[in-house]
Amino acid sequence: MYDGIVQQLIDELGRLPGVGPKSAQRIAFHLIEADVEVALKLADSIREAKEKVRFCDSCGNVSESERCAICGDARRDQGLICVVEDSKDISAIERSREYRGLYHVLGGAISPIAGIGPDQLRIKDLMQRLANPEIREVIIATNPNLEGEATATYLTRLLGTMEIAVSKLASGLPVGGDLEYADDMTLGRAFEGRRRVN
Amino acid sequence: MYDGIVQQLIDELGRLPGVGPKSAQRIAFHLIEADVEVALKLADSIREAKEKVRFCDSCGNVSESERCAICGDARRDQGLICVVEDSKDISAIERSREYRGLYHVLGGAISPIAGIGPDQLRIKDLMQRLANPEIREVIIATNPNLEGEATATYLTRLLGTMEIAVSKLASGLPVGGDLEYADDMTLGRAFEGRRRVN
Repeated sequence: MYDGIVQQLIDELGRLPGVGPKSAQRIAFHLIEADVEVALKLADSIREAKEKVRFCDSCGNVSESERCAICGDARRDQGLICVVEDSKDISAIERSREYRGLYHVLGGAISPIAGIGPDQLRIKDLMQRLANPEIREVIIATNPNLEGEATATYLTRLLGTMEIAVSKLASGLPVGGDLEYADDMTLGRAFEGRRRVN
Repeated sequence: MYDGIVQQLIDELGRLPGVGPKSAQRIAFHLIEADVEVALKLADSIREAKEKVRFCDSCGNVSESERCAICGDARRDQGLICVVEDSKDISAIERSREYRGLYHVLGGAISPIAGIGPDQLRIKDLMQRLANPEIREVIIATNPNLEGEATATYLTRLLGTMEIAVSKLASGLPVGGDLEYADDMTLGRAFEGRRRVN
């Protein structure tokens, strides 16, 4: 539809997650019409991220050095490891300010359909970290969906023989939500996990 | 929330139209985790587009040379000029296959709120093109919204004294919508049923 380079930019943008053909076109024209510096700053940010961003040797979080800022922070509780699927989950948990321990990024969840088994995840690295006697508890914080639950079950069984407490994030009604709109599964979990308050 | 470079990439992505903070984060991690070539191809496409894409000297459409492919196509009807707000509108009209004349891109619409008056649009260039006696008709195809209609009214009055037919796309376009998002059939009908306004 467009001359080569414009169409190429639209195609490349359209490959990004959540960007459809119309959005790709809109973003492409925005970049073409934007100031040169604005567009090149984005191009440079992508290039710089690919050159400098790596994964923490210890937990697998994104990092600019061998150890990420969280693993390198001595004030954090070195006895707790929270296992998440993805780096993005760390930032969500950090925002809650409820947790002050370390993390471990699996890099996904077990999904036979997508061909992802335990060997494709950073589970071996986790086991190596757990050899450290300082660690008291592993908190499994995989996503509350089919793949995440399968991964949690796998990990629970794997860690069952060790002298370390293993816990899972509570599931139930989301705060600020409406009971009326909660799905059956969530409500079921909320009942199952109800806590006595008196 | 993230180390410098990751956050910088998220910020830059978040400045794109239609990309919120969550999408920006998702795209950033997609790029960080993607193959180096995939990410650098996007960075290079942006850079190349900024370096090589320019605007057609005649109609103002995006182009890689002085004249765009449409203006340079001798088979197109040189007596018709379709006036649009934006390059994106041209690709939408081309998809409808209902029009075989030339275009003129205004670069926006009259909008007192956004501080855009006739002088900010490529109206002077249009008048210069209309000095060519070959031109028989000007088809106004601004967006069917407030700003587009105001621009159409302004142009109609401006061209009223000339010996050129002036027409406007027929209703059939949903009012309040964006020309860019109109479906092919609707656009085709709109061309077919255009009405003379002077």
